[in-house]
Amino acid sequence: MTRKSPPKRITIHDVASDAGVSFSAVSKVLRDAYGVSDALRARVNESIAKLGYTPNTAARGMRGKTHVIGVIFPDMRNPYFADVLSGISAALERTTYQMVQGIVQHSTEAALVQSMMNMQLDGLIIVGSISTSEELSGVAARLPLVVDGHHLPNATSFDTVNNDDAESGRIAVRHLVEQGYRKIAMLSLETHNGSVIERREAGYEEAMRAAGLGRHIEIARAPQSLRDIQVVTQSLIEKRVEAIFCWTDYVALEAMSVAGSLGLSIPRDVAIVGHDNTMYCGFEQNSLTSLDQSGEQSGLQAARLLIERIEGRQKAEHFLIHPRLVARRSSAAPA
Amino acid sequence: MTRKSPPKRITIHDVASDAGVSFSAVSKVLRDAYGVSDALRARVNESIAKLGYTPNTAARGMRGKTHVIGVIFPDMRNPYFADVLSGISAALERTTYQMVQGIVQHSTEAALVQSMMNMQLDGLIIVGSISTSEELSGVAARLPLVVDGHHLPNATSFDTVNNDDAESGRIAVRHLVEQGYRKIAMLSLETHNGSVIERREAGYEEAMRAAGLGRHIEIARAPQSLRDIQVVTQSLIEKRVEAIFCWTDYVALEAMSVAGSLGLSIPRDVAIVGHDNTMYCGFEQNSLTSLDQSGEQSGLQAARLLIERIEGRQKAEHFLIHPRLVARRSSAAPA
Repeated sequence: MTRKSPPKRITIHDVASDAGVSFSAVSKVLRDAYGVSDALRARVNESIAKLGYTPNTAARGMRGKTHVIGVIFPDMRNPYFADVLSGISAALERTTYQMVQGIVQHSTEAALVQSMMNMQLDGLIIVGSISTSEELSGVAARLPLVVDGHHLPNATSFDTVNNDDAESGRIAVRHLVEQGYRKIAMLSLETHNGSVIERREAGYEEAMRAAGLGRHIEIARAPQSLRDIQVVTQSLIEKRVEAIFCWTDYVALEAMSVAGSLGLSIPRDVAIVGHDNTMYCGFEQNSLTSLDQSGEQSGLQAARLLIERIEGRQKAEHFLIHPRLVARRSSAAPA
Repeated sequence: MTRKSPPKRITIHDVASDAGVSFSAVSKVLRDAYGVSDALRARVNESIAKLGYTPNTAARGMRGKTHVIGVIFPDMRNPYFADVLSGISAALERTTYQMVQGIVQHSTEAALVQSMMNMQLDGLIIVGSISTSEELSGVAARLPLVVDGHHLPNATSFDTVNNDDAESGRIAVRHLVEQGYRKIAMLSLETHNGSVIERREAGYEEAMRAAGLGRHIEIARAPQSLRDIQVVTQSLIEKRVEAIFCWTDYVALEAMSVAGSLGLSIPRDVAIVGHDNTMYCGFEQNSLTSLDQSGEQSGLQAARLLIERIEGRQKAEHFLIHPRLVARRSSAAPA
């Protein structure tokens, strides 16, 4: 039996290099994108003909069936997601892509993913996914996928964008310690199948130990309902904690409300730190210190990665955002 | 020339009445919906055969191509829309419909409507539409449509759900007058092509005149950016208004923030009333009086109407919600 080595497959990269243009220029010609000059089109088509390149052997995403991408959010109540949406919108502004959203709130992530696949969208961004790496690989096998807010750095078939959530936990604690607080509790989320909250908790614990405050580690977890957050906040206050680091801003605002209702003054009686630096933090009546993970940047990167993937990139990329603290009155040093 | 009267068209209503079952039961059989009993199916099919009814003469929506409906929101930043979404979700929970959202923010309503029509969705809810009655009729000619938050009571080809926005304006003013305020300004929205804000303004003016306060009518309009809201609020405060009725809650919270930053106390120096009674109003640090138009009820009714329309109803329905005031500290009587 004689073995023939398979003919080398001509890729979009070969076309780009033969035409002396960029990968994305070839992609634009193939997609018949807006703004492609006749000269560029002629040049690319010449190389395509010369090399015998067949566009349908290109990445599946190149089909550009609908020029609509889907974005799945966990809920619409957390204003952080509006920031992510702004970033995605900004990235899509000068492209031909439209987007539609699916909001998990009263549905399930799996059902929404299925609907979006049925609609033959060109690609999908899942924000705050609770799916496993295996489930997400299954989705990625069928359409270009970017996961925003779920730490899966070993994923090879889809991209991820994340905040360095362990660092968020560490920064919050270090800041409060510098301000003079010692009994620092964390108000966390009860059920989290994703990896974001776990890492914030781990960062919190690590920094507490590093500051010699291991004995004060106290993680209270509540579901997302305001009633539950009230109960858990009250129990922390009864334990006379000096500061509370909350996993997201609206939880921090509710904790602030509970403290106020009990006649406590912030930060004198209890300091509060939130996460996400959403629009309400800066309001004078809140003046809430918060970790900024730049939702807008997160959305921008997710959309950029998705478009690259739709246009043919196969190698996974993992983008990490470095959080920064925005200090306000709610965590000022006690007088 | 002899004229023949056209044969009476057999409708789904005739089938329902012949089978002695409800309209929606026939609809379910036609759609092969989940949970239809064999007995019901047999009974309906018998009437269909007897009457010679052909399902494809039924309403276009009966096609049920995708079992996905689209919902278009103006933006994701206003927490009121999360309430509307909850209501829609609740209404869809026990149906076979999934939903996807389009968010206008950085796109246009027209572009999103077009995308959703391309995706062959079964029906569409547009929340806070800025389209004209004619444009909306054009959409309604192509797929079942419900418009939520745009007063078009004469529309015949689509349904509407609205808050009684003139009544909101009247209630806000009457409440503030009862509390002892006289110089009551309204902080309104700068650009509104829809009819909601206009009616709130009209109700405000009407009640001011009715209270003999016509000379104090003062409507200041700002775009949705926080910076602009700050500037306009400050100008109202410089005019020494005693109370500000804001068109939506987050504008009211920002007005509250501006007043606080200027060292003013609420309500002693200036009272604030919002609109929508969203989750932030109840927080102790805000304690914001607000008009509740029940976003959840609005979403529920919109989804109910859309499903009826997809299932064949042709006659337009217009649902009006009656707002109620939720009084809190921000509009308490001045001491």
